Amino acid sequence: MSRPLGVAVIGYSFMGKAHSNAWRNVGAFFPETPAVRQQVLVGRDADAVATAAARYGWHDSATDWRAAVARDDVDIVDICTPGDSHAEIALAALAAGKHVLVEKPLANTVAEAEQMVTAAKAASARGVRTAVGFNYRGVPALALARRLVAEGRIGQVRQVRAAYLQDWLADPAAPMTWRLRRESAGSGALGDLGSHVVDLVQHLLDDPVVAASGRLRTFVPTRTGPRGPEPVTVDDAAWATLETRAGGVAGLEVSRMATGRKNGLTLELYGDAGALSFDLERLNELQLHDGLGGPTTGSQRILVTEPEHPSLHAWWPPGHVLGWDHTFTIQAAELLDAIAAGTDPSPSFADGLGVQRVLDAIERSAQQDGRTQTIADDGHE
Amino acid sequence: MSRPLGVAVIGYSFMGKAHSNAWRNVGAFFPETPAVRQQVLVGRDADAVATAAARYGWHDSATDWRAAVARDDVDIVDICTPGDSHAEIALAALAAGKHVLVEKPLANTVAEAEQMVTAAKAASARGVRTAVGFNYRGVPALALARRLVAEGRIGQVRQVRAAYLQDWLADPAAPMTWRLRRESAGSGALGDLGSHVVDLVQHLLDDPVVAASGRLRTFVPTRTGPRGPEPVTVDDAAWATLETRAGGVAGLEVSRMATGRKNGLTLELYGDAGALSFDLERLNELQLHDGLGGPTTGSQRILVTEPEHPSLHAWWPPGHVLGWDHTFTIQAAELLDAIAAGTDPSPSFADGLGVQRVLDAIERSAQQDGRTQTIADDGHE
Amino acid sequence: MSRPLGVAVIGYSFMGKAHSNAWRNVGAFFPETPAVRQQVLVGRDADAVATAAARYGWHDSATDWRAAVARDDVDIVDICTPGDSHAEIALAALAAGKHVLVEKPLANTVAEAEQMVTAAKAASARGVRTAVGFNYRGVPALALARRLVAEGRIGQVRQVRAAYLQDWLADPAAPMTWRLRRESAGSGALGDLGSHVVDLVQHLLDDPVVAASGRLRTFVPTRTGPRGPEPVTVDDAAWATLETRAGGVAGLEVSRMATGRKNGLTLELYGDAGALSFDLERLNELQLHDGLGGPTTGSQRILVTEPEHPSLHAWWPPGHVLGWDHTFTIQAAELLDAIAAGTDPSPSFADGLGVQRVLDAIERSAQQDGRTQTIADDGHE
Amino acid sequence: MSRPLGVAVIGYSFMGKAHSNAWRNVGAFFPETPAVRQQVLVGRDADAVATAAARYGWHDSATDWRAAVARDDVDIVDICTPGDSHAEIALAALAAGKHVLVEKPLANTVAEAEQMVTAAKAASARGVRTAVGFNYRGVPALALARRLVAEGRIGQVRQVRAAYLQDWLADPAAPMTWRLRRESAGSGALGDLGSHVVDLVQHLLDDPVVAASGRLRTFVPTRTGPRGPEPVTVDDAAWATLETRAGGVAGLEVSRMATGRKNGLTLELYGDAGALSFDLERLNELQLHDGLGGPTTGSQRILVTEPEHPSLHAWWPPGHVLGWDHTFTIQAAELLDAIAAGTDPSPSFADGLGVQRVLDAIERSAQQDGRTQTIADDGHE
Repeated sequence: MSRPLGVAVIGYSFMGKAHSNAWRNVGAFFPETPAVRQQVLVGRDADAVATAAARYGWHDSATDWRAAVARDDVDIVDICTPGDSHAEIALAALAAGKHVLVEKPLANTVAEAEQMVTAAKAASARGVRTAVGFNYRGVPALALARRLVAEGRIGQVRQVRAAYLQDWLADPAAPMTWRLRRESAGSGALGDLGSHVVDLVQHLLDDPVVAASGRLRTFVPTRTGPRGPEPVTVDDAAWATLETRAGGVAGLEVSRMATGRKNGLTLELYGDAGALSFDLERLNELQLHDGLGGPTTGSQRILVTEPEHPSLHAWWPPGHVLGWDHTFTIQAAELLDAIAAGTDPSPSFADGLGVQRVLDAIERSAQQDGRTQTIADDGHE
Repeated sequence: MSRPLGVAVIGYSFMGKAHSNAWRNVGAFFPETPAVRQQVLVGRDADAVATAAARYGWHDSATDWRAAVARDDVDIVDICTPGDSHAEIALAALAAGKHVLVEKPLANTVAEAEQMVTAAKAASARGVRTAVGFNYRGVPALALARRLVAEGRIGQVRQVRAAYLQDWLADPAAPMTWRLRRESAGSGALGDLGSHVVDLVQHLLDDPVVAASGRLRTFVPTRTGPRGPEPVTVDDAAWATLETRAGGVAGLEVSRMATGRKNGLTLELYGDAGALSFDLERLNELQLHDGLGGPTTGSQRILVTEPEHPSLHAWWPPGHVLGWDHTFTIQAAELLDAIAAGTDPSPSFADGLGVQRVLDAIERSAQQDGRTQTIADDGHE
Repeated sequence: MSRPLGVAVIGYSFMGKAHSNAWRNVGAFFPETPAVRQQVLVGRDADAVATAAARYGWHDSATDWRAAVARDDVDIVDICTPGDSHAEIALAALAAGKHVLVEKPLANTVAEAEQMVTAAKAASARGVRTAVGFNYRGVPALALARRLVAEGRIGQVRQVRAAYLQDWLADPAAPMTWRLRRESAGSGALGDLGSHVVDLVQHLLDDPVVAASGRLRTFVPTRTGPRGPEPVTVDDAAWATLETRAGGVAGLEVSRMATGRKNGLTLELYGDAGALSFDLERLNELQLHDGLGGPTTGSQRILVTEPEHPSLHAWWPPGHVLGWDHTFTIQAAELLDAIAAGTDPSPSFADGLGVQRVLDAIERSAQQDGRTQTIADDGHE
Repeated sequence: MSRPLGVAVIGYSFMGKAHSNAWRNVGAFFPETPAVRQQVLVGRDADAVATAAARYGWHDSATDWRAAVARDDVDIVDICTPGDSHAEIALAALAAGKHVLVEKPLANTVAEAEQMVTAAKAASARGVRTAVGFNYRGVPALALARRLVAEGRIGQVRQVRAAYLQDWLADPAAPMTWRLRRESAGSGALGDLGSHVVDLVQHLLDDPVVAASGRLRTFVPTRTGPRGPEPVTVDDAAWATLETRAGGVAGLEVSRMATGRKNGLTLELYGDAGALSFDLERLNELQLHDGLGGPTTGSQRILVTEPEHPSLHAWWPPGHVLGWDHTFTIQAAELLDAIAAGTDPSPSFADGLGVQRVLDAIERSAQQDGRTQTIADDGHE
């Protein structure tokens, strides 16, 4: 490759900071991937984005995302804006021939997501790569979990017990924000947290969800914003049971009101030959129960920091743990590897669409008193 | 009280052994309760029950439960037989004027349970006491949890995440037993394990469940018994979401196929001012998250072995942990205290009926594609 | 055996209650052991001991231990008095031909312990059995640990990291007691807690300690008793490093001032092929690290409640945990089995003497600025 | 400040990579610190260091450290070479008027360390800053621990139980390296791991160690290197008890042969009003036991990721955990802040010397059969 791949990140708040960190560091840890150049950071406030760009290592900043995605020195467009602008920016970037990474969720609606998948397929035929930002796939412990499931280490997975619990809305005095309005956020805990969980269930089992029933709840129906009290129009918490094509069942609970849980994405996989469990608050650890029993069989805590663990060759010696932000660096490396190899990266836009369809089925079920909804799976692969 | 209360236990296998242990030891730890005498152990095999009676400290054994419950030297009848005989024995014992303790579930059907509640009410008016064996209410950590909820320590409970996971059926080669036939067992994991969880949700929150939706699954549809392969006609696992009268939601998962979980009854209560969690495999511990946050707020592990903890004055110094069987001793003491006080003990037959109604609603929902079922609550108090 | 073995317990407070519980229950769980009869409970206060005897299931009570140990209907004398009377009672009981169980420590001085070992050897030749009450050897998880070490599962043990931490003296306002006076208690945390740890190190490794260096500390030098402020003349905490004959090193820390630790006996064994760890506050669990590493090797939590685990056949199904007091029932069963088999039980008086010698070496080292002291091992076997 | 501070890092292997990562990222997370420029990476192999420099974000590479530390565009010299070259490079850099950061240990001998402290004092008078790389001081959970101790939250600390356990030498087949030769490494586990522990004891308690006794052990006396079998001349494991000036006692154990422990730096602090504990393998967590007891007092797990926790404002929302490498970024920020403020950073060269003196006392004690050695404390402040 003659020159480094130029990157543009659109958005510079929480996700923009995390993605910038990934682009700044990916070369140091993954020298075998194509080199990148932090070309331009894009945002609406010229001063603020210029400050952020300087701070996060960007060569340039800009306010016009259309101009930015059209730049010749930009090869990769990384979209970190709110979900309602994902489709428009991604389609424009693909039209301009750029590789595209979109923060999850892929889009706010199934219809937009379907449009994006169509565009991605067309782009792929032209050698243009697309990916959606389910960064937790890159957590080494979860990558190891997927490997162990694929190897049959825990046998056929029958049950998954999954939750993503946070508590930043536990206090009824927490203020109204755009995240609590249906028109801007699309959904509440279900979309924000449930999307990660649904993606991981499908990814770890390599088995799509084909039916879902659900329940939603808004515990604090009114919150006070700058303009006074206002109704909360998204869910605070959601529950679902999901059936997979191969016959597994996943029970799912997500909440922003689970007092004391800060970032509690927990997964328990029970197979007919073993079990796995994981907690994002201890993301360097994976619990493996190997086999069905016996006097010296228990659940073992694997500290996933050995050089033979997924992605760990890139970092430090055993026992020197990674943090949350390293998952974005891994995600960036995987996109770069796919670009170099000319293959479609994972998770794909189609994966993103698959997740949206499951979330949509959960919402429909909740509106119909919990009745199970089936999910079309033509878009899953 | 002029003479010790005479006890008859009906049944001498697993539960009979556990209840015998309680009657043998209750006086040593709770000297303030009325004294008891282990009068007679009843079972169908004369030799086997005689051996068990000698071993477990009984003065007598017998094969005719009708005769046993009519004995003048018997004041308390403790029923440890399978669920399908609970109603008949309990009604006979109440008719004979005996106090009655029934192992859970109260009965195999709602209709039987309703009949028992009616009989219990009539008996209560005559000073005769009845109780159902939800022994986990007596776990000191759970009794402390209930006290803390009642005191408002975690505020209004919004969400409960509950599971009871075992793995003794994880292996498809595990043989067919009466517990896997609908006609003998009534139900599978739902009735056996779910009954404990539903009781604890209602008990800890002091708030009845008013609606439920559910899903059942039999992962291994055929197992081999002495007569060859046979269909499994009960559930291996069950999922439900429950709504309480006060507006809380409980997500529930029970299974006998959760590889690596031996007796994993876990409860997480999330309130608007704190949280609690518990795991039966570590039954001497309660986790308390006190308040909504701050730099030195976390979830604290309380070792529930202090003299001021529920029932702990009866046992050992701090840090000297109790075992599973002590919960039956506590249950016996509570029944004896109620007899002495002339009050109705907890959990009552009505509590047992309330649990049956919730389980029934979950089954009906599962048969109707997950649609939410409401629960009549006239029988709850 | 024609009639049940008659038991006398001397002492009826904390240890007397725990030992009574064992004798009351041993037959129910271990029916294959010789039957016992709770003959007589002995104490100095006639009324109090009569009340305790009735409560704990004894047929008789008495105030004269000399008469009690001479009774024809007493076959086993179980000594639960303070350490300074152990030698006298044990020697009298052995002279009367009774089997003897002595609560730990065997005696307050090495000289007394040596005398007891001599008497025990002579008694053994006459078929009379003796044992010392290191009840933690019977914790199923620790019995499993010993089995795994003996099988070579963790290889040659190089390091043991051990502690026994309690906090009942953390508060300087805690009052003066006889346990804090050298003349009555012999020593402080070292003797009370360190004796268990030293016994377990020697027992689990099956390897005697041959050298020790130590440090003692009294953090609160004066406490107030009924007669006003008084000097504390024993240690509040102790540290030692021990060398075993086979070349292992154990680091030891014991304290009654370790805030937040209630009964924190923790052991970590590091071998050249694996590792084990244990915490008495979670006594149903053993952690095993099996092998030196690899991508799916971690420390596994074994819930030691399976029927094939030591002593567990006697109790409940998997996952139904034991409590602290069950260790005394196991201890009683092991003594009864040894009596039936005509073999010397473990732990023996010689084991008790071995522990005393190590504690003595630690004290001498502490008095000599930490200089390492060697330990004569003629009395170890 | 008119131009960014130019940084030179000497050494480009494990520590060079970790320090480069810190300099590359410090500005993104701590924008309020002086800006830096990654000027030059220095190493002996021109090609290898050039490759590393490009990968890690350096503008230049070089092989002559003397020339590098003399460059006008270099303001900070960060020394990541083996310990035997620390003194020479640091003294040269100070002579050239550069701020100096030295990886721990400060030096291989007390004599060298004293010389460095003298030079640092002189440099400080000229506005030149020096620091030693005890990066674990910056772990947010440990910074919080120090704050809580200083605030009196756990009262007067009486006991510290500390260990640093790794297992990379557990296998006797692990090869000989320079780290196992006394002439190159100075010492074994004691210097490598014990230095961190001793620094943290002194730092967290803000109380110097004044006496020490110790024991060293080499479990595998011979290992095979490229030239065949060779004696191991440093310790594999070390034990010590330390007394602090204020009267606390710390028990210390370090090892490279503790099977299953990868990076197990664990600390338990027991005070007269509470307790704290920490495990580096879970570096985002701190356990706090607040107060002496009561029915709802336990040890609480604080997830140290809240904005009000030390350094956390710089990173992510609550629950988004940090990794091991972020401690170096924090260390860099603290040095930059000190340079900007014109104050001496912590940990200072004097702190490094203090640690060396304690390690030296432990070694002397080990050579004298464990006899306690006192430590001169003129160099501590």
